[in-house]
Amino acid sequence: MVEQENPTNGTEQRPPTAAGEGMRLKLRRVAIDTYHENVAYLHRDCSVYRVEGFQALAKIRVTCADLQIEAVLNVVDDDRIIGIDELGLSEQAFAQLCAGDDVEVRVAQAEPPASMDAVRRKIGGHRLDLEDYRAITRDIAQSRYSKMEMTAFLVATSQNGLDRDEVFMLTRAMLETGTRIDWNEPLVADKHCIGGIPGNRTSMLVVPIVAAHGMLIPKTSSRAITSPAGTADTMEVLATVEIPPETLDRLVRHERGCLTWGGTTRLAPVDDLLISVERPLGIDSQGQMVASILSKKLAAGATHLLLDIPVGPTAKVRHMREAMQLRKLFEYVGDHMGLHLEAIITDGRQPIGKGIGPVLEVRDVLQVLQNDPAAPVDLREKSLRLAGRIIEFDPDVRGGQGYAIAREILESGRALQKMDRIIKAQGEKITRPPLGRLSFAVVAEAAGVVIAIDNFCLARLARLAGAPISSGAGVDLERKLGDRVAPGDVLYRVYAEFPSNHEFARDFVSRGNGYTLGETELSSRYYVDA
Amino acid sequence: MVEQENPTNGTEQRPPTAAGEGMRLKLRRVAIDTYHENVAYLHRDCSVYRVEGFQALAKIRVTCADLQIEAVLNVVDDDRIIGIDELGLSEQAFAQLCAGDDVEVRVAQAEPPASMDAVRRKIGGHRLDLEDYRAITRDIAQSRYSKMEMTAFLVATSQNGLDRDEVFMLTRAMLETGTRIDWNEPLVADKHCIGGIPGNRTSMLVVPIVAAHGMLIPKTSSRAITSPAGTADTMEVLATVEIPPETLDRLVRHERGCLTWGGTTRLAPVDDLLISVERPLGIDSQGQMVASILSKKLAAGATHLLLDIPVGPTAKVRHMREAMQLRKLFEYVGDHMGLHLEAIITDGRQPIGKGIGPVLEVRDVLQVLQNDPAAPVDLREKSLRLAGRIIEFDPDVRGGQGYAIAREILESGRALQKMDRIIKAQGEKITRPPLGRLSFAVVAEAAGVVIAIDNFCLARLARLAGAPISSGAGVDLERKLGDRVAPGDVLYRVYAEFPSNHEFARDFVSRGNGYTLGETELSSRYYVDA
Repeated sequence: MVEQENPTNGTEQRPPTAAGEGMRLKLRRVAIDTYHENVAYLHRDCSVYRVEGFQALAKIRVTCADLQIEAVLNVVDDDRIIGIDELGLSEQAFAQLCAGDDVEVRVAQAEPPASMDAVRRKIGGHRLDLEDYRAITRDIAQSRYSKMEMTAFLVATSQNGLDRDEVFMLTRAMLETGTRIDWNEPLVADKHCIGGIPGNRTSMLVVPIVAAHGMLIPKTSSRAITSPAGTADTMEVLATVEIPPETLDRLVRHERGCLTWGGTTRLAPVDDLLISVERPLGIDSQGQMVASILSKKLAAGATHLLLDIPVGPTAKVRHMREAMQLRKLFEYVGDHMGLHLEAIITDGRQPIGKGIGPVLEVRDVLQVLQNDPAAPVDLREKSLRLAGRIIEFDPDVRGGQGYAIAREILESGRALQKMDRIIKAQGEKITRPPLGRLSFAVVAEAAGVVIAIDNFCLARLARLAGAPISSGAGVDLERKLGDRVAPGDVLYRVYAEFPSNHEFARDFVSRGNGYTLGETELSSRYYVDA
Repeated sequence: MVEQENPTNGTEQRPPTAAGEGMRLKLRRVAIDTYHENVAYLHRDCSVYRVEGFQALAKIRVTCADLQIEAVLNVVDDDRIIGIDELGLSEQAFAQLCAGDDVEVRVAQAEPPASMDAVRRKIGGHRLDLEDYRAITRDIAQSRYSKMEMTAFLVATSQNGLDRDEVFMLTRAMLETGTRIDWNEPLVADKHCIGGIPGNRTSMLVVPIVAAHGMLIPKTSSRAITSPAGTADTMEVLATVEIPPETLDRLVRHERGCLTWGGTTRLAPVDDLLISVERPLGIDSQGQMVASILSKKLAAGATHLLLDIPVGPTAKVRHMREAMQLRKLFEYVGDHMGLHLEAIITDGRQPIGKGIGPVLEVRDVLQVLQNDPAAPVDLREKSLRLAGRIIEFDPDVRGGQGYAIAREILESGRALQKMDRIIKAQGEKITRPPLGRLSFAVVAEAAGVVIAIDNFCLARLARLAGAPISSGAGVDLERKLGDRVAPGDVLYRVYAEFPSNHEFARDFVSRGNGYTLGETELSSRYYVDA
């Protein structure tokens, strides 16, 4: 019970508020791109800023009609950026409100998302339940988590922070936050590689082979974030990869496969947000990785998934023990999610194929499709093995026959035909970008056998050379593991478009070229079989 | 060895770079306050943005003469904010470069701080060593950590993430990153309370008592961040609390004590940065807390420290077991840092004194100093006990005599005289702010005995009423634990300056007033002795 003593009838200098629901301001778009983070701009002399006692970097809630967003506050001292009776929003935040300039908005201090309680329990070492994971993913999907809060969640659930049932619950919760494609077919195949191997463009061979076999394989891929090329970047040399959902549906049903960019579909939005925090921090978690990959594949409508887990000293997964743990975790969660999943452990000791960077990788892929004798054997073999395993998902294919079927499809030219049809359906690029104009070769300084190639080093080099933004930039390997070289033999060539990139790459190579030469002949066998 | 094939002599549309060290742009101050986070603004059409393949939210390194800072990138589409050949920096970032507009700066992609490797090892469950903690605190002090990276460090070291030797190493590393005051005296006393108890303004009584005894007690305090008042906010009603270092030194030597704001001195800068991340996340860690408090106290030159650990169901420390763990950890680290430390566990079941909010708390403090019979007994008793324990740090004082000495100093009026001198030395406020003009009373709805008072609830209420920004806002308690009330008896009054705050507070109280009434008489004894 509340007993009123002084009714609110005093005059005051600053009557800034409407009762209860936040203070009113005029909305203004501020043409600043803040990516995944909503930023709001208030003038320092704005009454709301002064009365509410906001602090720069505080989180505020902005309401416009019945839409509500949260944003981090920046305080402005320049009338040209924002007026004193206005609330500015960065481009992405402005777009979320679906309103125009000058519309009235209400502003209030944001409460931290309720599910941060669960995150704090997780930090405290407790096990969370499905409702907790649902609340967390829902809040993240609604942009209620700041990057700091997402980091707290990621760190708390990394390493052994999640048991396998929690990984299952997280996967399920992430799947529920986005839309899910239903292809209305009993078998929708997909493949995924746990990244980290430059040049590993098997999808561009697996998809045409599997689609030519008649299985549905609507493959979406990512663009490179820290690598020199994602499958979407490389495919983009040949065809448009950003396809509207309506077109995609028709295209996939017609061709049985596609090679498009996954970013345009609003599948697993939480995963995208978490990755945008996880990457720059360089933190890795098996549980997060499994939930991320499986929720995305399930959202894309996959019923059957083949996972490629490359192992090698400079791959993402470095030890066989770790690869086995990961495989078991994928299998456990896949089974519980009703996904037919197979995971194979492959050789990740060196880049796959010769080229690293979009244009060079396209050359390798086309050589394999054209049955060119110059085609890289490892890329061809690995792709056939993966395609073969996917073809064996087909109930009409006898176990062990997949590889032969895949090879027949490739050698007969049907894979190339299918790829041509997919390219035309997605929108063929009329002119293909050329190889970078500036190049240099890196040569062996002594005689020996190539006994190690550093994936990280070559990926970084291709990136410094300009890949994937300059699609003609990259690295072209002339020697691979086990090759014998004489002093002066070319190990690889580096291509760049701009002098700056050329300079960066030369400078980088001068400090180490990523190749280790040794005395003894290497076994030519892979130490793991694909 | 690198063999040049194509010399970089081609013409190109965009010659954007100087070899190796980043690309050149003109510096521009952007009048946006981004608090602890450096933000850089590049126009979307800027050649650097396009060629380098920067992404919004990427971290870039900005070099100007021999100064270097890092900043998070925002991409601008408005020429009025930033030109295409300019690099904009938010106010704090601009200030760090100590340069003017139009000065040439170089921009490059920032490498993540090297010490993030150690953070990732910590996330992986490993123990770090002193060099790791030094590298981390150095990088944080140099603003090389983003908020995400700081969050990762905080979460990884929270809960049981740090063993007690690691807490010691972190404390030492944090101490080393800032400047350290040397008072050149053998005994420099300080006190600290593990927060969370509204109205707990014992410092404003302990300092004049201890200083009147002749001991050096240069007390710096914080402003409220999430609480309705910090000691600095309350002291500011009476005197200036932001004192330049030179003046402070003279003042303290003359008066033997002070009550100033700690934020102006550049002691333990890492701690301030970590707290700016920890608070909004609401994450707590005993190890972080101990390192934070002890590094700050040591940096301020303390040789003897009394710690007040309030325990209660709505205090920061809720259980006696937890309080004991914390005490042991403080003692362990204090001993290893060469600090004479005593920690006492006190009653934290309810607010101390009657007033919550700067003006109301000043009234309580002055009543105690003036030996006014209306003075809150609990505030007086607790302050005398704390002051007594500090006075016993004096080698000339016999164990157990401190309380009597403190009481004599208070009752004789010497504490009040000392406070007056300190106020005058710091700069007396000519006009003191009045109590908030708008108020309402909250009354008991039934008869009973007050058996619980929720510290969080009352702190939040005082904050909603406008404290500490409106210094006259707050809550004035008329009933405390154990008091018997009849229906309609006033439990407390709420004061506000602005109608909006008045409204927020009324709305909040209507959902729960923070008092629990019961049947049985409470024991009047504290369940822990101060």
